[in-house]
Amino acid sequence: MKQRLGAEALGSFFLFATVVGSGIMGEKLAGGNVAVALLANTGATAAMLYVLIAMLGPVSGAHFNPAVSLVMRLRGDGAWPVLAATILVQIAAGIAGVWCAHAMFGLPILQLSHHLRDGPGQWLGEFIATFGLATTILLTLRHRPQAVPASVALYIAAAYWFTSSTSFANPAITLARSLSDSFAGIAPASVPGFIAAQIAGALAAHWLERRLLPAS
Amino acid sequence: MKQRLGAEALGSFFLFATVVGSGIMGEKLAGGNVAVALLANTGATAAMLYVLIAMLGPVSGAHFNPAVSLVMRLRGDGAWPVLAATILVQIAAGIAGVWCAHAMFGLPILQLSHHLRDGPGQWLGEFIATFGLATTILLTLRHRPQAVPASVALYIAAAYWFTSSTSFANPAITLARSLSDSFAGIAPASVPGFIAAQIAGALAAHWLERRLLPAS
Amino acid sequence: MKQRLGAEALGSFFLFATVVGSGIMGEKLAGGNVAVALLANTGATAAMLYVLIAMLGPVSGAHFNPAVSLVMRLRGDGAWPVLAATILVQIAAGIAGVWCAHAMFGLPILQLSHHLRDGPGQWLGEFIATFGLATTILLTLRHRPQAVPASVALYIAAAYWFTSSTSFANPAITLARSLSDSFAGIAPASVPGFIAAQIAGALAAHWLERRLLPAS
Amino acid sequence: MKQRLGAEALGSFFLFATVVGSGIMGEKLAGGNVAVALLANTGATAAMLYVLIAMLGPVSGAHFNPAVSLVMRLRGDGAWPVLAATILVQIAAGIAGVWCAHAMFGLPILQLSHHLRDGPGQWLGEFIATFGLATTILLTLRHRPQAVPASVALYIAAAYWFTSSTSFANPAITLARSLSDSFAGIAPASVPGFIAAQIAGALAAHWLERRLLPAS
Repeated sequence: MKQRLGAEALGSFFLFATVVGSGIMGEKLAGGNVAVALLANTGATAAMLYVLIAMLGPVSGAHFNPAVSLVMRLRGDGAWPVLAATILVQIAAGIAGVWCAHAMFGLPILQLSHHLRDGPGQWLGEFIATFGLATTILLTLRHRPQAVPASVALYIAAAYWFTSSTSFANPAITLARSLSDSFAGIAPASVPGFIAAQIAGALAAHWLERRLLPAS
Repeated sequence: MKQRLGAEALGSFFLFATVVGSGIMGEKLAGGNVAVALLANTGATAAMLYVLIAMLGPVSGAHFNPAVSLVMRLRGDGAWPVLAATILVQIAAGIAGVWCAHAMFGLPILQLSHHLRDGPGQWLGEFIATFGLATTILLTLRHRPQAVPASVALYIAAAYWFTSSTSFANPAITLARSLSDSFAGIAPASVPGFIAAQIAGALAAHWLERRLLPAS
Repeated sequence: MKQRLGAEALGSFFLFATVVGSGIMGEKLAGGNVAVALLANTGATAAMLYVLIAMLGPVSGAHFNPAVSLVMRLRGDGAWPVLAATILVQIAAGIAGVWCAHAMFGLPILQLSHHLRDGPGQWLGEFIATFGLATTILLTLRHRPQAVPASVALYIAAAYWFTSSTSFANPAITLARSLSDSFAGIAPASVPGFIAAQIAGALAAHWLERRLLPAS
Repeated sequence: MKQRLGAEALGSFFLFATVVGSGIMGEKLAGGNVAVALLANTGATAAMLYVLIAMLGPVSGAHFNPAVSLVMRLRGDGAWPVLAATILVQIAAGIAGVWCAHAMFGLPILQLSHHLRDGPGQWLGEFIATFGLATTILLTLRHRPQAVPASVALYIAAAYWFTSSTSFANPAITLARSLSDSFAGIAPASVPGFIAAQIAGALAAHWLERRLLPAS
């Protein structure tokens, strides 16, 4: 239990620091070319995901994501109090990662994003992004478990570009990114819509995987 | 059979949504630098291919491509009615993926591309692209089967750049991309030439592989 | 023997077509940003190298490179007449790949490059590039043979950027690229200096590896 | 011992030549877009790290980094005189790599950087960068040792972007980069602050890993 929460804390800290930090660096260096900034943000996020899942997956499953932890709970992983503690750790350590990114770049630690992200298109984007992420985890764990680190990293890399919302796909990171008025930020008012779409997508993956591709 | 068609549907949906969605996002953000947009489109497509083939290969072979399914049929995989059903599912689910990309980006769902792509150079490009794809699948399956997800993904990444046609290499995606007037689109009038070249390339790979590199 | 030459022909064709074709595409789309064109050229080349070595390595060693074939001969692989036939096939099939790239992009088939590449800095670049390539192959084959496809691909990706010559590192591709007046071309007058530096680098790797890191 | 020092020399030479050489090439070609130059620098560095660790890890551990060698010493690897010799070799061969990069690009061999990099934000960046690097090595070695080459390469790729200092994370490379007045350089006056932060980060990883995630 201590190991499990420690691994989720360490991973959420580095993952969220990477998402926000590489967004700040990308925007700073890209001279207004948003595509180049997003390419750098994508590469850094996917690279860090591979690293963290490869080294922490054997300890905690390497979720760093309440929507993923919820789906795993629904399949029998752990107990509800463990889920609650895990989610709290993901959020707290992730916010610490965001604040660490601000400190590294000499920005005010406490910020609120002004970047509104909403509307049906972006909500559909988050639904699809999280549906695809949960499906990837469920089916890769079943059919090629050693590929999970690469597959999750590459799925998120693709989803940064093919979804209209740039694929947050994670309620904890959505909350944490509302505390950063930088490239990766999201206005607090846009958070509930994103989280609702993410949970719906994760539940849809949980349900569909059982019906479409039952384990033989 | 139900599992096989389900896997082809899921994979075609996500693959085609990724090709079209990342094209829209890339063009939107790249500020007119087409090379940067195509880099993003390439990275997203290759990343998604790895993910889908790793998790669905053990279920259906993870073709998402009538030309590949045809070559496999010629080598004894399944039966002709299964091939027909597979191709229908690839096309239908793939078109649903394209429409989902339009919905995510707030574009009209029903579109027709105006992007003409034809002439001997592009037809040769599609011939070479599909010949290389089918050869990659046949020889990698024989000599290093665990590398198929990475090899197919990286082959397509290279082919987006070294062929003049940006390597559609897939009759189903060619049809589906004719329904998107975006970065990845192809005018309906250009579709038959592309599909003919793709089938010729796949058959050439089927034939040449047997003669040039017979299994020992 | 027939299989071995067939594999070297197939691989050299696709490798050289990729180097030249992705250079043409990159330059065409990058709007004058040479770094973006070279990034695309690098990515396509490395991706194709992985694909070809993974699928053809078990057949022929997947050299596609006379300097590598020479080092392998010096270590006892094959016989001198086989080396001669291999090099001829690498050059002939590679030139066919370059011409195919020209045909795909609607350019004149027969060209000569006007891109002078010479001087001590570039010769040192080719020496270092080929020394590193041969060392990578020799040591990776000894210590982690299953990593050869990824290691060779990634070594070349790095060498495109860290050497002043963009790392041709291959006498056959140097010859073939003299026949393309495009991004990847090299003027015929610059070919002998590059090939001499490449052979010196390969021999240095052959010699140093035995002395610095003798097999235990 | 001779093999071990030889491997550290070869690896440090190629790694440091790659960091400095690809920085020079990137800046030269990127036409003022620093993000594109850093993308190329990142890709080349990560690619070379994978290659070197895959082929030299079995010989010397493939540190190329005094901070990593120090942590390994604290865990019982080798003896103190071996550590001293290793660090000297890393610095000397690494400087030779930097000078080789200068020679390849026709620049003066002997240079001193004028690029000041200091302040609390950058020191925190180096602390976090090295803490994460050492943690990655320690936990990946324990839980998924075959992933070490990919994980270290990808960690550094992410850290080039998410830390404010672009992640030197290596006292030897910090010293060597002070001898290059190019893209990757660091002014000699900024070296002590970086090295202090790096050693603190490495020691923090050594300490925290034992407490947070004790081996079960």
